[in-house]
Amino acid sequence: MTLQSEKWKKDFPILNQVVNDEPLVYLDNAATSQKPTAVLNALDTYYRTSNANVHRGVHTLAERATRQYEDARETVRGFINAKEVAEVLFTRGTTTSLNWLAQSLGEAVIQPGDEIVISYMEHHSNIIPWQQLAKRKQAKLNYIELTEDGHLDMESVRQKITDKTKIVSLTHVSNVLGVINPIKEIADLAHSKNALMVVDGAQAVPHMTVDVKALDADFYAFSGHKMLGPTGIGVLYGKREWLEKIEPVEFGGEMIDFVGLRESTWKELPWKFEAGTPNISGAIGLAEAINYLETIGMDAIMSHEQEIVSYLMPRLLEIEDLTIYGPKDTKDRAGVIAFNIEGIHPHDLATAMDMEGVAVRAGHHCTQPLMNYLSQTATARASFYLYNTLSDADKFVEALLATKEFFLYGLD
Amino acid sequence: MTLQSEKWKKDFPILNQVVNDEPLVYLDNAATSQKPTAVLNALDTYYRTSNANVHRGVHTLAERATRQYEDARETVRGFINAKEVAEVLFTRGTTTSLNWLAQSLGEAVIQPGDEIVISYMEHHSNIIPWQQLAKRKQAKLNYIELTEDGHLDMESVRQKITDKTKIVSLTHVSNVLGVINPIKEIADLAHSKNALMVVDGAQAVPHMTVDVKALDADFYAFSGHKMLGPTGIGVLYGKREWLEKIEPVEFGGEMIDFVGLRESTWKELPWKFEAGTPNISGAIGLAEAINYLETIGMDAIMSHEQEIVSYLMPRLLEIEDLTIYGPKDTKDRAGVIAFNIEGIHPHDLATAMDMEGVAVRAGHHCTQPLMNYLSQTATARASFYLYNTLSDADKFVEALLATKEFFLYGLD
Repeated sequence: MTLQSEKWKKDFPILNQVVNDEPLVYLDNAATSQKPTAVLNALDTYYRTSNANVHRGVHTLAERATRQYEDARETVRGFINAKEVAEVLFTRGTTTSLNWLAQSLGEAVIQPGDEIVISYMEHHSNIIPWQQLAKRKQAKLNYIELTEDGHLDMESVRQKITDKTKIVSLTHVSNVLGVINPIKEIADLAHSKNALMVVDGAQAVPHMTVDVKALDADFYAFSGHKMLGPTGIGVLYGKREWLEKIEPVEFGGEMIDFVGLRESTWKELPWKFEAGTPNISGAIGLAEAINYLETIGMDAIMSHEQEIVSYLMPRLLEIEDLTIYGPKDTKDRAGVIAFNIEGIHPHDLATAMDMEGVAVRAGHHCTQPLMNYLSQTATARASFYLYNTLSDADKFVEALLATKEFFLYGLD
Repeated sequence: MTLQSEKWKKDFPILNQVVNDEPLVYLDNAATSQKPTAVLNALDTYYRTSNANVHRGVHTLAERATRQYEDARETVRGFINAKEVAEVLFTRGTTTSLNWLAQSLGEAVIQPGDEIVISYMEHHSNIIPWQQLAKRKQAKLNYIELTEDGHLDMESVRQKITDKTKIVSLTHVSNVLGVINPIKEIADLAHSKNALMVVDGAQAVPHMTVDVKALDADFYAFSGHKMLGPTGIGVLYGKREWLEKIEPVEFGGEMIDFVGLRESTWKELPWKFEAGTPNISGAIGLAEAINYLETIGMDAIMSHEQEIVSYLMPRLLEIEDLTIYGPKDTKDRAGVIAFNIEGIHPHDLATAMDMEGVAVRAGHHCTQPLMNYLSQTATARASFYLYNTLSDADKFVEALLATKEFFLYGLD
C-alpha cells in the first residue's frame, strides 16, 4: 500500500470502535470524513486559548483570533494554489458556495434566453440552484449526456456549450460514478465561447491535488467536512476579476465599508462576501485538516485510494448479479463505488452490512436526475479515504457476500 | 451576587490566562462568548464517537449523528418555547437568518410602495438586508426614532407602523445601548396592522428568558456563538404558517422531495430550509450550551448581569468626561455598556485597557446609523456575561481610570 495503516487507528479515534459487535469499517467518506485528533485538538486549543470575534477588535484575544482565521485562509489559498487570499471566501459549505454563485452570478450575467450547462451526473446542490435561476430568468438549463460507462460524453459537451452559454457548472468528481472529469479541457471550451466555468469540487479536493489556476476554473467550491475538517465550513474560490464584479448575497456586519439609511458600500475582497461572525473555529479546523493532508501528500492519498479500488474492482465484478455504476477501470477514477445487487434493495443491503460493522450509504445520493438516467431509484455506495485499508476492502466484500447469501438464500 | 464566581474559572479554561502580564478580564461578550468545557467536550465526543452525515444514512453512525442533531433541535425548541421542532431552522447565525428572511419573506410579501419598519438602533445585519430588499422592490424603509436615553420612542413606533407596513424587524436587545425593547407590545401593534414581526434576538437569547410564543414574534433569529455555543451555528424560528408559505433560499441535498430536470419539490419543515450538510457538531454544541445555561437558569443570569451593571453604573457616572450611551438605570437593560471619554479615541482606550488585561471592544459595533444618530463615529463597549464578577467590574473601572490618567495627564 502507498499509505500504511498503523497510523490511522491512533490518529482517528472514532475508527477504533465496535459497531454491532464487529469492528467498524467506515466506507461512507463521500458523505463525510472522520477527523484526526490533530483537527479536534486545534478546535479545542482555539476555544481554550484564543476565542474572540474577528476583525473588529483591538484586544489581545481578538487579534489572536483574527490572525488564526486569516492564516487559515492563507492555508486554503496555498492548498488550491489560488493567486491571492482575496480569492478565497469562507462559506458554510459547497451547497452555500454554489447557491451564492447561482444567485449573484445569475443576477450579473444571465439574461432571458441565455443558456446554463450542467450534466446528468450533478449533485442536487449543483442542479437546483441553476434550475431555479433558469426559471427566474427565463434562461435554459442544458444537461450534458454521459457515456455508457459513466464519463461525460465529450461529444455532448461540445454540442451543449454554445455561443448562448453563459455558465458551465460541473462536478470535478462524481459522488456516485467516481469519475474524474476533464475540467481543464472543458474550461478551455467554455472560455472559447465566453462562458464561465464553475466547478463543484466537493469530491475532488479531499482526494487529489487541485490547482485552481492550472484548471483555469473561474469559480471552485468545496466543503471542509469531507476533507477531515469540521462541519459548517466550506470554501468558494473565485477569480478576483469576477468576485469584484458580482454582488454579495448576504449582508451584515464585517462585510461593509459604509452603511447609510438607504445605501451601503462593501469592504474589499474577500470580506465583501463574509457577512456576520464567520465560522472561526471551522476555518481554523479546516486549516489543520489541510496541514494533515499535506503532510501525507495529496498524490499519495490519490494513489492509495486507487490502489484500494484496483484491488476491489475485480473481486466485485466476480459477484453474480452485482452491477457497478461508473467506469470499471481505475483510470480517471476516485474511490467511490456505487453498486446494486439484483433482488436486494440498497437500503436493505446497507442495513444488513451495518450488522457486519460495515458502514456504506444507500439512496439516491442527492442525484435523482442521475438515478433516473441510470434507470435506478437508488444504489448502495462504498467510498474510501486515506484511512481505509485493503483489509477494509476484504471485510467489505465478505459482508457483501454474507448479505447476498442471507437475502437471496437465507429464507430457503 | 446571584451567581458565585468559583465555578467559572474551572468551567471556562480560557478565562484563566494572563494577557499582557495581567489576569484576563473578558468584557467583549456582546461580540462573542467563551465556551464552557462541557461544550468543548460535547464537540470532541461527537467527533470521537458518532460523526457521520445526517438524515440520508442507515448505518449506525449516521443514525446516531441524525438522532443527536435532531435532539439538538428539540433542545432549542424547548429553550425558546416554540410550539414544534418544525419551526426551528438551523442556520449559520443571526446574519444568515435575517438575510434568508429578507430574501424569502421579501419575495412573498413585499410589493412596490409597501413599507418595512426598523429602528435607528439596529445592527447592520438587521438593516442592510431590508435596505437591499427595499431597493429591489421599490419599497420604503422607515426608521423608528429613539428617545434621549436610548429607548425606542413609542410615539414614533405608533407613527411608523401604518397600514402600508408589511414587516417590522427590531432587535430585542441593543448591542450598543443595552436596552431591552418591548417586543410583545410592538408585535401586537404590528399584527393590528397585518404586519409581520421579525426579531433579532442575538443579544437577548444568551442573557434572558425568551419565549417566542409569549412574544408572539412571527420570526426570531439568534446565534450560537454568543450563548456559549460554537461559531457557525444559529437559529431561525418561524411560525409554521409562515414557514409553509415562503420559499427556501438555499437549494441542494437534504431539503428536497423530488428533483426533476426542470422542476423540484421540497421536503416538509424544518428540512425544507436546510440545504446541504448542516453544521452538525455546531448544533450539538449549541444544545450543550443550552443545557449549561438552563442548569444555571436564565433568570439568574439576567439578575447577575443586572447586578453587575447596577454596581458599575454609579461608579462610571462619577468619572469626569465619561458619557454612557443608553439608559443609566438597570430597568429594561442588559449587560452592555457603551461609552466614550472626551479626548480619548475609543480605539486608543481599548488598546490601553488591553495592556491592563481588560478586553473591551471599540468601534461602530456594526451600527453606523446609530453612531450617526448619536453623533459619534465610534464608542468603547464593555459587555458582561454570567462568568463576569464584581471583581471584573472593579478591574474594569481601575483600568479605565488608569487609561484616562495616562492619556489626559500622562504626557504633562
